[in-house]
Amino acid sequence: MIDVQADAAHNRMVVTFVAEPSLAVDAAMAGAAVATERIDLRQHRGEHPRMGATDVVPFVPFADLPMSVCVELAHAFGARLSKELRVPVYYYGDAATRPERRELEKVRRSGFEDLLEHIGDADRAPDEGPAAVHPTAGATAVGARIPLIAYNVNLKTADLQIAKEIARTIRASSGGLPNVKALGFALADRGLVQVSMNLTDYRVTNIWKVFTAIRDEAKRHGVEVDASEIVGTVPLAAAVGVLKDAVHEPAFRMDQILEKRVWTAE
Amino acid sequence: MIDVQADAAHNRMVVTFVAEPSLAVDAAMAGAAVATERIDLRQHRGEHPRMGATDVVPFVPFADLPMSVCVELAHAFGARLSKELRVPVYYYGDAATRPERRELEKVRRSGFEDLLEHIGDADRAPDEGPAAVHPTAGATAVGARIPLIAYNVNLKTADLQIAKEIARTIRASSGGLPNVKALGFALADRGLVQVSMNLTDYRVTNIWKVFTAIRDEAKRHGVEVDASEIVGTVPLAAAVGVLKDAVHEPAFRMDQILEKRVWTAE
Repeated sequence: MIDVQADAAHNRMVVTFVAEPSLAVDAAMAGAAVATERIDLRQHRGEHPRMGATDVVPFVPFADLPMSVCVELAHAFGARLSKELRVPVYYYGDAATRPERRELEKVRRSGFEDLLEHIGDADRAPDEGPAAVHPTAGATAVGARIPLIAYNVNLKTADLQIAKEIARTIRASSGGLPNVKALGFALADRGLVQVSMNLTDYRVTNIWKVFTAIRDEAKRHGVEVDASEIVGTVPLAAAVGVLKDAVHEPAFRMDQILEKRVWTAE
Repeated sequence: MIDVQADAAHNRMVVTFVAEPSLAVDAAMAGAAVATERIDLRQHRGEHPRMGATDVVPFVPFADLPMSVCVELAHAFGARLSKELRVPVYYYGDAATRPERRELEKVRRSGFEDLLEHIGDADRAPDEGPAAVHPTAGATAVGARIPLIAYNVNLKTADLQIAKEIARTIRASSGGLPNVKALGFALADRGLVQVSMNLTDYRVTNIWKVFTAIRDEAKRHGVEVDASEIVGTVPLAAAVGVLKDAVHEPAFRMDQILEKRVWTAE
């Protein structure tokens, strides 16, 4: 278990564990069984959208594990979850079986209450399990994906419009950088504004590319960067990616990191 | 054993191993015993300066080990080497017992042949062991230090003078960046020149600071950087240092690297 995050406003717990592939499905099933037993979505309120007591289970490759292994684990977990706990399952990310289900938001939509009404619709049929929402545990999105990076850049201005405009310029959905989701926020207590992002594939668009794009856009507005914030963990490959780009060292290899060589020895 | 480097021109082998502190001295002694038995400095020629069959033994802290432990290991190894193999020992780096012996070059000077003549001089007395050079194995420098980083920046010009001038501007010995040794070289076959460096304390002057200083100096000469080359391994902390500086993320912590958290768990 490497991370647990929960807060009252979201009323939601994110549990991150690392396991050998042979144990990962059992471990996730054990967690889902407790969630199904204890959480009743009919009574549940929170700010974060959700459609299940076990809302979303992404299998994420660690270090050199191929994504194909995570796709297999997702499908094995989805099959067991739907059969043993009678929860309908939707596959997303690299585990999606339909292209329109790759994005988690497109699977989750408006969540539990909406799904109760629409699960019978042709385009809402689950990938596994019963064609009926579990009465208390809802439905579960099961996926395979690389690690997301939550990354913010704070700007030395109180002008929220500048952050919103930069967010619009750089986000993928409006033709900016691929695999970048971005919103502008005010950090009112600090007199700053923030471009708040999720980098959904750091191999395509890494922290350095995003930082320099925002820095250059901000300069056009006559504004300086205050600082970056990397929220939570990032894969070593993402940090190495910044190193390679920032100092023009394209040939640098992960195993030139001393700790990687030692920790993975034998 | 994580690295072995040797070539005919230098006629020298650099062996890097990682060990628990309790085993490191025994392992180094085992290596020194073989070198003492097999290498006769009276017959030895090579480009690299040397004063001993076991020429230099630096104890380098890995991950979070305090430097004080490496100083203790250096002194324990020096005591055993001088006693069991009758090789005089000079302490350098953080293990130095005299300030003028901190720098390895100041200890090694012109090497074996010179030491044979001068070991009786007041300022050449060994820190441990006999006041006479071992007839075949010479003497050994034993130290404690953080990892060095070998770092080069190639410039898009064939003008060697520019590389030499930039090297002079940035190196510590001529008032440039602290803990930087730098020389200018021609990469004749590629039509480029290189500023070739050793960063002796990346905590004080890291790769990013050196890269930006050279890039800015080169710009003053109307020259662009071609690429960087990081030679061999670097500690994770050095890569993280580049990340922090390059994207202005001073609060980033080492344990935000996913692999570090997982590999050092329990």
